[in-house]
Amino acid sequence: MSGDLFIHNARLPDGRIGDVEISAGLISRIGPRLDPVQANVERVDAEQALLLPGFVDGHMHLDKSLYGLPWVPHRAGPAVSEKIEAEKEILKEFNISVEDQAARLIRLAISKGTTHIRTHVDIDTEKGLRHLEGVLAACETLKEAVSIQFVAFPQSGVMRDPGTAELLEEALRSGADLVGGVDPAGIDSDPKGQLDAIFGIAQRHGVGVDIHLHDPGELGLHQIGLIARYTQEHGLGGRVVVSHAFSLGTLEAPRIAPMGEMLAENGIAIMTTGFAHTPVPPVHGLLEAGVTVFAASDNIRDSWSPFGNADQLERAMMVAQRFNSRTDQGLEEAFSLVTHGGARALGLEHYGLNPGCGGDAVLVEGTCIPEAVVTRPPRKLVVKAGKVVARDGVCLV
Amino acid sequence: MSGDLFIHNARLPDGRIGDVEISAGLISRIGPRLDPVQANVERVDAEQALLLPGFVDGHMHLDKSLYGLPWVPHRAGPAVSEKIEAEKEILKEFNISVEDQAARLIRLAISKGTTHIRTHVDIDTEKGLRHLEGVLAACETLKEAVSIQFVAFPQSGVMRDPGTAELLEEALRSGADLVGGVDPAGIDSDPKGQLDAIFGIAQRHGVGVDIHLHDPGELGLHQIGLIARYTQEHGLGGRVVVSHAFSLGTLEAPRIAPMGEMLAENGIAIMTTGFAHTPVPPVHGLLEAGVTVFAASDNIRDSWSPFGNADQLERAMMVAQRFNSRTDQGLEEAFSLVTHGGARALGLEHYGLNPGCGGDAVLVEGTCIPEAVVTRPPRKLVVKAGKVVARDGVCLV
Repeated sequence: MSGDLFIHNARLPDGRIGDVEISAGLISRIGPRLDPVQANVERVDAEQALLLPGFVDGHMHLDKSLYGLPWVPHRAGPAVSEKIEAEKEILKEFNISVEDQAARLIRLAISKGTTHIRTHVDIDTEKGLRHLEGVLAACETLKEAVSIQFVAFPQSGVMRDPGTAELLEEALRSGADLVGGVDPAGIDSDPKGQLDAIFGIAQRHGVGVDIHLHDPGELGLHQIGLIARYTQEHGLGGRVVVSHAFSLGTLEAPRIAPMGEMLAENGIAIMTTGFAHTPVPPVHGLLEAGVTVFAASDNIRDSWSPFGNADQLERAMMVAQRFNSRTDQGLEEAFSLVTHGGARALGLEHYGLNPGCGGDAVLVEGTCIPEAVVTRPPRKLVVKAGKVVARDGVCLV
Repeated sequence: MSGDLFIHNARLPDGRIGDVEISAGLISRIGPRLDPVQANVERVDAEQALLLPGFVDGHMHLDKSLYGLPWVPHRAGPAVSEKIEAEKEILKEFNISVEDQAARLIRLAISKGTTHIRTHVDIDTEKGLRHLEGVLAACETLKEAVSIQFVAFPQSGVMRDPGTAELLEEALRSGADLVGGVDPAGIDSDPKGQLDAIFGIAQRHGVGVDIHLHDPGELGLHQIGLIARYTQEHGLGGRVVVSHAFSLGTLEAPRIAPMGEMLAENGIAIMTTGFAHTPVPPVHGLLEAGVTVFAASDNIRDSWSPFGNADQLERAMMVAQRFNSRTDQGLEEAFSLVTHGGARALGLEHYGLNPGCGGDAVLVEGTCIPEAVVTRPPRKLVVKAGKVVARDGVCLV
């Protein structure tokens, strides 16, 4: 399962050249010029490449991508409901293998340095648990190369598709780790109904909640308030994510800090893709208020979006550009969204590059994090739990 | 100088597999299964890669990049005037070779498929013509691999730096092709003064004008109106570019069409980088009104911006994302900004992939333009006037 590896001659987070020892899948030592202890441990010469923690992609749709297939022109209208309908049509028309496509995307993510994924798997009364089964099957063969959390995600709504709530519970019994939600007002036209359902399920199964909230402006803000209350009432602080939360992007400056404090107090994390075309959550202001914020891929080459390549360094760059973050501090903040921020949101323990942390790492050309965000160099090496899983941009598993 | 080349087995713009014949630097034939005429002509098997026209990067600063040097953290404040000051400080501190840095950037651009560049070269009373001389020297050794237009660009203003106007004229006598301008109000606090000066110079020397207009909102819009009047009065229609024009991004929908008509009637082209953090010109609305719009790199890894890689396919993708253009039509429109739009703005004759056009082309993996914009694949082959100048992402000159 987990391996031993000695990476020497790497540029460490403090800027010095040094070594990392991974033993039984965990980082045992890190520092300048370590003496390797076991002679038989695999050694890698980093050639002074920059050592980064494994990337966290905490919002991926692995079950519907067209990645790797012949080009499919985008046809969905702009509304979320139009995208849901177009998706059903396309998935039927192309009859894709969920398992094969999920495996393709996971391998792509690994090749880009992602070592932790949270994926949303569509559950509805038409698909049942078919997508979950496909994604779980794909992950079974790749689970040593990447850690994956599964969200039972009611893409078509909960209340407007009766029977979905029961399927979500079945999904949790069948391998899903969290329960999802989607625009309780915009899709279900019944915020109380959906939130009662999914928070009830979360509480009964002792799992977290991940809600995709596209609803704009005051409609979205109102629901964030509701979600905070439900989180508190159900004792789920620290285990709730609101993804997108475009409505936060419409906040005037004086409202950002109080909103951030409410989210921080209730332990609700915010995911953003940093979309360029629409208001997005004010990352810096939320971080300053103590909110866990992270950035992720979301849709990759599917009926929702033709874009995406699972490159979390590129995602960090896009978020930096979205907020005109040009200084090293700003670029490092953007990088934190695809690493430590994601790890906090996903509740990952032992994440990072310190002794005791999981033996995950990425090596890239470059001398510092800001440079890596800007240049997005090919990943020379990706290591998961002490095993080399990608080299020179090619997934080895 | 210019070469003969027979590219066979390429995916042509109409989707068919076929061949391109370049003779004496010009496309002589293009179509399915051509018979090569001359037996001694160099042949390239495109392996069904997609044939694209050479990319046009119509707004580059070749004379101040830190690309290829050890990482320099960004230090300039957000205001344009702060960036101008920080730049002077950094250029002095690092004492970069304008010639070497320009050559680095040009080679990078060639490796990404750019075959036509317009570059802005700083002219002020401190630098004199030093930057122009450096960039011209760099281009001398690379001129067979890329076409370059030089703008004598008064980065520090015209009126606030007396003597600059004379230097701009001297630059035009020394190899510059156009005269530039910069925020006539914001930098010079004298719109009439700067526009009188630069349009007068343009008229006397029979050259075009390229004005970088960052001034926001109504201040910017007012100056666009002034520029249109100067363009008409000086008979320079079709030879004037307003770069950035962020103020156009603040136009409410009903004002876009009339503004577009004014720009189109006066033959003024608009350049945008598609920045994600600030309002940018409404590309689609301007195109619909008949305006020439193009997208370009602007600053690359310099004191203005840590970002940039001279990849015009990536630029097209960024513009597409900026406007949420997900359909094939939208992605093709974005692509037009780095190809035919740029060519029109730069007044390039014989641009494109038809018989009689310059023998410039790019080959990439993929089956259609929208796919190429999304995936931004490495450039398999870059051809300039019938000569192979880059292969597999590596500049050969």
